[in-house]
Amino acid sequence: MNGAESLVRTLLSGGVDTCFANPGTSEMHFVAALDRHPEMRCVLCLFEGVATGAADGWYRMRGDIAATLLHLGPGLANGLANLHNARKAGSGVLNIVGDHTEWHLANDSPLRGDLEGVSRAVSHWTRVSPDAPSVAPDGAEAIRAARSGNGRVATLILRAHAAWEKAAGPAPVAPSPPMHRPDAALVTAAARALARPGAVLLIDGPALHGPLAETAGRIAAKTGCRLIAPYLVSRIARGAGAIRIERLKYVVEDNVAFLADTTGIVLCGALRPVSFFSYPGKPSLPEPPGCPILDLCAPDMDIAWSLDALAAETGATAIAPARMPVDLPEIPTGPTTLDKVGDALAALLPENAIVVDEAVTSSRPLNIPTETARPADWLHVSGGAIGFGLPCATGAALACPDRRTVALMGDGSAMYTLQSLWTMARENLNVLTIVFANRGYQILRGELANVGVESYGRNAARMFDVENPTLDWVALAKGHGVEARRATDIDEFTKALRHGLAAEGPYLIELVC
Amino acid sequence: MNGAESLVRTLLSGGVDTCFANPGTSEMHFVAALDRHPEMRCVLCLFEGVATGAADGWYRMRGDIAATLLHLGPGLANGLANLHNARKAGSGVLNIVGDHTEWHLANDSPLRGDLEGVSRAVSHWTRVSPDAPSVAPDGAEAIRAARSGNGRVATLILRAHAAWEKAAGPAPVAPSPPMHRPDAALVTAAARALARPGAVLLIDGPALHGPLAETAGRIAAKTGCRLIAPYLVSRIARGAGAIRIERLKYVVEDNVAFLADTTGIVLCGALRPVSFFSYPGKPSLPEPPGCPILDLCAPDMDIAWSLDALAAETGATAIAPARMPVDLPEIPTGPTTLDKVGDALAALLPENAIVVDEAVTSSRPLNIPTETARPADWLHVSGGAIGFGLPCATGAALACPDRRTVALMGDGSAMYTLQSLWTMARENLNVLTIVFANRGYQILRGELANVGVESYGRNAARMFDVENPTLDWVALAKGHGVEARRATDIDEFTKALRHGLAAEGPYLIELVC
Repeated sequence: MNGAESLVRTLLSGGVDTCFANPGTSEMHFVAALDRHPEMRCVLCLFEGVATGAADGWYRMRGDIAATLLHLGPGLANGLANLHNARKAGSGVLNIVGDHTEWHLANDSPLRGDLEGVSRAVSHWTRVSPDAPSVAPDGAEAIRAARSGNGRVATLILRAHAAWEKAAGPAPVAPSPPMHRPDAALVTAAARALARPGAVLLIDGPALHGPLAETAGRIAAKTGCRLIAPYLVSRIARGAGAIRIERLKYVVEDNVAFLADTTGIVLCGALRPVSFFSYPGKPSLPEPPGCPILDLCAPDMDIAWSLDALAAETGATAIAPARMPVDLPEIPTGPTTLDKVGDALAALLPENAIVVDEAVTSSRPLNIPTETARPADWLHVSGGAIGFGLPCATGAALACPDRRTVALMGDGSAMYTLQSLWTMARENLNVLTIVFANRGYQILRGELANVGVESYGRNAARMFDVENPTLDWVALAKGHGVEARRATDIDEFTKALRHGLAAEGPYLIELVC
Repeated sequence: MNGAESLVRTLLSGGVDTCFANPGTSEMHFVAALDRHPEMRCVLCLFEGVATGAADGWYRMRGDIAATLLHLGPGLANGLANLHNARKAGSGVLNIVGDHTEWHLANDSPLRGDLEGVSRAVSHWTRVSPDAPSVAPDGAEAIRAARSGNGRVATLILRAHAAWEKAAGPAPVAPSPPMHRPDAALVTAAARALARPGAVLLIDGPALHGPLAETAGRIAAKTGCRLIAPYLVSRIARGAGAIRIERLKYVVEDNVAFLADTTGIVLCGALRPVSFFSYPGKPSLPEPPGCPILDLCAPDMDIAWSLDALAAETGATAIAPARMPVDLPEIPTGPTTLDKVGDALAALLPENAIVVDEAVTSSRPLNIPTETARPADWLHVSGGAIGFGLPCATGAALACPDRRTVALMGDGSAMYTLQSLWTMARENLNVLTIVFANRGYQILRGELANVGVESYGRNAARMFDVENPTLDWVALAKGHGVEARRATDIDEFTKALRHGLAAEGPYLIELVC
């Protein structure tokens, strides 16, 4: 057995059975080993950012890792932005990156570069496996690292000779290390802080869906505190029956107003709130000056235990949490407005959908009506690096084949990793993509005004507007093998939405707005 | 004047007047400053890999730098693979990357990451400009760095407060530092080495076109040495009238045979030859064991001076170099073969074309007939990171609006940065793209056989074949605003080629092969 074979067997016995791949020559022995194991599902991605974003989406929905297979430094570099997003989302991802043999690296061949440097810029864990016998134990360690601390980015660099030389066999994956828990005194302090009027419990990560969200909801119901999530989160359960969780805002001033009456913030699985960007004369931190912040449980600590302890300390074990009611809007008609799009979406979104939201400015008006739509999981671009949505939807749909996935995309953001559409078609994934075609980087048009520029000229217009020519999303989808339709008013949109939500396989709507 | 304004004026007065841009909020003051200076040509790219690859193409044809404008760490990361290619090609590129304010970086906002780490993994020069008064001098230093050593990758990190706070004014760009030159004794030794039978003069960089290639050709004619270029080069003058330069091979065994009778190699502007990849039991170095290699002039040294000195030392100042004759093939007909495609291309390629070659396996059969076609500059993916061709063609066409650019693309490689097509349409560039649609990663099919796998199964097939669905390049082009046609035999191809070479603006041919 060679090193590559020992690694594939280590992955499979360690519970990693899906690999988002874009291999090259230096990974050929690993490909040959994968080919001997059809029980590993290899999903080809035509650009590496699709592979890493899909692994992120997979983790968000499965709560466990998939692998990526990438080609040397440039392959990893192409996947880097979505690894940034995965890292910020707290998603575990295991990257396997091929490299030259040790002796080949002594000379400056075309693809040689600072692969370790690229990896360390985004990975929590990076290791170069030096020889074939090390590959299986290093792979096992990489799996463990990717699963630790609620999900981390781990990158194993597989040199070609380590893949093709003789290895001993697969290695067992050790259980993840126990997660840190807060001291009892901190739990008591947090309970006391939440009892004060104006207190906020800020939660993130696994606390935003499933049983942990239930616990958080009970704590809020018992203490009277506000329960708040960051503006962009990895995954949040929304819609009818979901725990009532408020959400921080994007605009600095809105966020300041939102937290104006806050007397204290307890963080559980969440980072302290901070503005997306900084602006002249505007605060980076939205809470009132001097507002105490108690960090109960960092994102990589034991969030379930912390919430249970806090529920026990506050006596919130039996109380019913506040939930969102069901309130489905009427189907709207007439010219397109984003409010109407939100109503149509809220009216038609099926139960248990997965909504990947990277519509940027267009997504904000959709939030209100969908709060009381049928229950769904919503996934956001936690790291802010656009190009996340279509890959994430690809991975989420593969992870949950029985659910309907809807990707809400800006036309600017969808262009970054549009190659995802091909993988959706190849794997026949039930992903409905809605492209909000406002023909430009809408958010930047607003941001230029934010820095004091009232009207702008040719250079700014040419950098913000995606016009001359207009992108034809129906053609782009067709080119990737995905059926598509253009909607220019809300009736066409509603009709296309019904069709797309019932389609077998991927479908795309270009919504001109 | 703020820091952003001081930087734009420094760029303009320093001779940098083109900026390939994909900005975001943190670059908004810089965008506002660019907007006040319409003499700076801002070219929007819908993905950062297009911007960096276009800057590479620009440098190859202009011999001077363009700027890129990128959005924080993830924006730079998206451009990294083509910066790797630029670095390997010896292209100077100046990246301007926005970042948060210093105080905003104290908190973990979504887009915060290891921007410096990402930059250092590929840039020769990285600097964070700490405050507004530093921006102009740092920008001037960045320009100088990007121009030094025959072209380098320089990255200036522009923090938001340094852009918006008060600065003094633009800064002058100092002349590039003088380049190192070899000792006279080394020149004498090189001349002696080249006089021996079986000697090779290996040249690269600026020695492959223009007056330096003429000098190299004279040295070869005088000494009788072989004049050889690497397999993939930044830019080489080919076709009728061009200096006769042989080219190293891709396949290891072919390269070993090619150099079998070599008694000594003199490097001038070139690295020592090395195989692209390493394989079990095959050599990394192609020259005969013990073959002496004399490194006359490293790629970042004074190549023009070195060649002149060598010409003087060998007495090659007056002799006529060997040139390629003209020999245009007949227009072929019938079913498609790559040899016929080569003949059609060689017959119709217009004088002074720029050919960007990223057709990978498909490009090899095109090389023989185009050697004696009309003169053209050929640009290769020197760094081996695919996704280079369409961006490079974009930048090259912008740099040389009076010339016809032809991009030869594999279907696998074209998918990486297909967003380039939109910029070609927006800027109305005379780029003819030919996609060799063999429906897969043809090179990997061969490489798996190279590692001893004779027949392969489902997983390998699913990772090598881009089928089910087939990509529709005519639709993909149309989606980006580019006219296109599919050719299924050589007559259709020839017709489309004539049409595309005469078209006003971009055109794409999907050649089914």
